[in-house]
Amino acid sequence: MEKVFIFGHKSPDTDSITSSLVMENLERKMGNPDAKAYRLGKLNKETEFVLNYFKIQAPELLENIEEKEKVILVDHNSFAQSVNGIEKADILKVIDHHCISNFETATPLYYMAEPVGCTATILYEIYMMNKFEIEPNIAALMTSAIISDTLLFKSPTCTKKDIEAATELAKIANIDIENYGMEMLKAGTDLSDFSAEELINLDSKELEANGLKFQVAQVNTACIEDVLKDKEAIEKAMTDFINANNLGLFMFAITDIINSNSKAIVLGERASIVEKAFNGKLEDNMIFLPGVVSRKKQIVPVIKENA
Amino acid sequence: MEKVFIFGHKSPDTDSITSSLVMENLERKMGNPDAKAYRLGKLNKETEFVLNYFKIQAPELLENIEEKEKVILVDHNSFAQSVNGIEKADILKVIDHHCISNFETATPLYYMAEPVGCTATILYEIYMMNKFEIEPNIAALMTSAIISDTLLFKSPTCTKKDIEAATELAKIANIDIENYGMEMLKAGTDLSDFSAEELINLDSKELEANGLKFQVAQVNTACIEDVLKDKEAIEKAMTDFINANNLGLFMFAITDIINSNSKAIVLGERASIVEKAFNGKLEDNMIFLPGVVSRKKQIVPVIKENA
Repeated sequence: MEKVFIFGHKSPDTDSITSSLVMENLERKMGNPDAKAYRLGKLNKETEFVLNYFKIQAPELLENIEEKEKVILVDHNSFAQSVNGIEKADILKVIDHHCISNFETATPLYYMAEPVGCTATILYEIYMMNKFEIEPNIAALMTSAIISDTLLFKSPTCTKKDIEAATELAKIANIDIENYGMEMLKAGTDLSDFSAEELINLDSKELEANGLKFQVAQVNTACIEDVLKDKEAIEKAMTDFINANNLGLFMFAITDIINSNSKAIVLGERASIVEKAFNGKLEDNMIFLPGVVSRKKQIVPVIKENA
Repeated sequence: MEKVFIFGHKSPDTDSITSSLVMENLERKMGNPDAKAYRLGKLNKETEFVLNYFKIQAPELLENIEEKEKVILVDHNSFAQSVNGIEKADILKVIDHHCISNFETATPLYYMAEPVGCTATILYEIYMMNKFEIEPNIAALMTSAIISDTLLFKSPTCTKKDIEAATELAKIANIDIENYGMEMLKAGTDLSDFSAEELINLDSKELEANGLKFQVAQVNTACIEDVLKDKEAIEKAMTDFINANNLGLFMFAITDIINSNSKAIVLGERASIVEKAFNGKLEDNMIFLPGVVSRKKQIVPVIKENA
């Protein structure tokens, strides 16, 4: 059997890391022992908490991929967010819950996407479809991913299917969703170790619309003002990033997971797009976004519409 | 409930028409009574035979789609092969078995694709997954689509899943696959009624690779020489089409479904790509392709590689 590389997006979050590990488990059950999970970057604090909690080893780092290597993408499809060299790889499968963009294959493939809150919810369905047993450790990874992506079911991206899957999986993993979930989300909000440059790269997506190259990064916190103590350094890191990558716009959203609001720092020549998109004014390069917690559902689409 | 339009590709073949009707049935079982099957063009003889045989009404013709209308695509994803106005529609679902190209959505969607020979095989899996009953008429439509797309399991695109699905479905529909299948495929080879212009449009796909705009049309026949009686008129129609659409290459493949070979008429400034792709010489604008029956697997990828 040939080797198959499984990975999520760059700046990996909990769903990208755990879904790679879960997909490795699924592929083995399907008779592909040479499929292996990888990660495209450093683990964030939340994911570290999850892997430590359940004593699961992190996937190896993957820097780039050679031509014709076989890959399986989870939690993303955009080449801009994927591994270096993806254009020349042989994509066997995609399991994802995002819109489809900049995706192109020469041959037919297995592609399964659903408009649900988390990749793990789709993976759960694949286990059900195939009547595969789900081991407690694997169930724990999937539960964690759903809690993470839906912010404990509070995000507008959360669907009935996500809640149902997490409820079933938590039983298998013997997890108290509320208690474990809050502990896990809070672990993710510990940003004290990170430099400004690391902060803006923790969960950052490169996007494009109508010729506009833009970046939307997001961090979760229990206290927005805590993060803003470093505002000056963050703005400097964002400006460097804009210049290095020739971006029209960089939006850094700081999301308060307790009160379900965000405050964003917005820089770049086309920063006014964000004012138009959210019908507000930037003050001190910042805008308050009440009720906004989901980049995918509440930020990216409105920026694209106004680009 | 809002209306949902379900349709396959332009120049519809049996899979595109029957999968639209089957998907309508599936959506109703899923509780969406306002989803309705449409067709994007004239039925071919094979599809007419199928619908007459089982006394099933053809879907209505759809010319274009308005902004924000809700659609479900079956048997295609490329906008070039879809309805006029697709760029502005709201794509809810895609069920397909082709490579992904020129496909882009603003929001997440349900996308299910597998590298199998026929869309109907994936639809069959969706019935199984949901434990929905399959009525004999619906099973007959799916069996016909699989026979059509796999040329009675002889095409290299045919997979084990296609054979398994067709075998189960033929039982439900009470069809003798071999006898019905040959009769159906032969009905499709009756090209006597068509003008040269109609012939080159019967099952024709608009494609693009490395800046090359090209078209690959295909007809099935029991006798290649019969079709070539009209060679002069076909070449004229192809040339007109090339000029009207600014194509670099037009390949018209005439496939002998009895002996599993093809002969192609190739025109256009970039016709030599076909010589390179198949390692042969065009004589009289024609090339013989032994063993070639599948546009998707044996023609399009090698043209793209050499474009």
